[in-house]
Amino acid sequence: MTEFTSEFRDDLQRLMQWRRDVRRFRTDPVDEALLKECLDTFLLAPSVGLSEPWRVIRVESDQARAAALKNYEAANAEALKGYDGDRAALYANLKLSGMQESPVQLAIYCDDATAKGQGLGAATMPEMRRYSVVGAITQFWLTARSFGLGVGWVSILDPAQLNRDLDVPSEWSLVAYLCVGWPEELSDTPELAKAGWENRDNTLPIQSR
Amino acid sequence: MTEFTSEFRDDLQRLMQWRRDVRRFRTDPVDEALLKECLDTFLLAPSVGLSEPWRVIRVESDQARAAALKNYEAANAEALKGYDGDRAALYANLKLSGMQESPVQLAIYCDDATAKGQGLGAATMPEMRRYSVVGAITQFWLTARSFGLGVGWVSILDPAQLNRDLDVPSEWSLVAYLCVGWPEELSDTPELAKAGWENRDNTLPIQSR
Repeated sequence: MTEFTSEFRDDLQRLMQWRRDVRRFRTDPVDEALLKECLDTFLLAPSVGLSEPWRVIRVESDQARAAALKNYEAANAEALKGYDGDRAALYANLKLSGMQESPVQLAIYCDDATAKGQGLGAATMPEMRRYSVVGAITQFWLTARSFGLGVGWVSILDPAQLNRDLDVPSEWSLVAYLCVGWPEELSDTPELAKAGWENRDNTLPIQSR
Repeated sequence: MTEFTSEFRDDLQRLMQWRRDVRRFRTDPVDEALLKECLDTFLLAPSVGLSEPWRVIRVESDQARAAALKNYEAANAEALKGYDGDRAALYANLKLSGMQESPVQLAIYCDDATAKGQGLGAATMPEMRRYSVVGAITQFWLTARSFGLGVGWVSILDPAQLNRDLDVPSEWSLVAYLCVGWPEELSDTPELAKAGWENRDNTLPIQSR
């Protein structure tokens, strides 16, 4: 069947409205079969030249988790220095990662040197491989939320340090560090909006040429 | 309502299976209200620091379309030179863009210099803003397909030339050139797989640390 109903489309819109970047997780485990089902949506994602450049590192050991957390804490302390006054106080009070609590943590990489796809579509814009990985993460994120699972994307990290700590091949680029688990609460409002950091726009900026 | 049914999840999986990168379009127009409904899913996408850095250029004039098509044709001819023998013959026969036919064409940019979000989350990985734009495009793509609309992402372009031709601000980065319209046919198999260029993997590469 190739058609979709208006009820499905309404639910798809609702899924996007209730998908959140989650930073507050319960610590109870995520069923492995459920996690696999969500991750398998990577395999349905578009990729430039069908290069499927996504590589997943599951960060599980105490040592790897401690290194990632230390990396985040250092990068976040440095980021705080970029703000002054009330804005700095607001930043310091934000919870920007669930790395202390989330039971599943995934470092998502792009293999920039993959031979798969034979470079098709990536000659003038090689960043397209990394964009393919982002598309796959987006599909994973929506699927996880459809099961009630929360995903948080941590970007406050020194990627070179993380690559060393996780001992990944030099031609891989870090795209995302994902925390996955059951969220403490559900919301249709971004945490940064609730905290007064920034608000969402109501209109998409479109120009014509 | 924050819960989703197993029927919805099955349909979501089916949507991802039937989403295609479309390069063969009918030329009949796309209803403007429908296009707006699909584009408005950008506003539900995650963005780093709530920076919402997406900027959309609708490529409509004959002059802008001709420049974009010429850009693609030059980049594609150059890309062909990177292949030899049977592979070159195969490449030359691929249809890699719907820019001749698709009624709607959108150049999607990232404003790397936006003040929105005050830089949160983008200090160590500034590429995160562009990744936010890719997530929004992915949501648009899935939504469009849920209405039967096809989307094709053209990456065989010289971005610097396109930016000049479309006269965009220097701090904007091209993320995608999208062709949108009604597809000539529906398929659950990528065109590059059908053409024998590359096949999909059945398993996601996961390692532990």
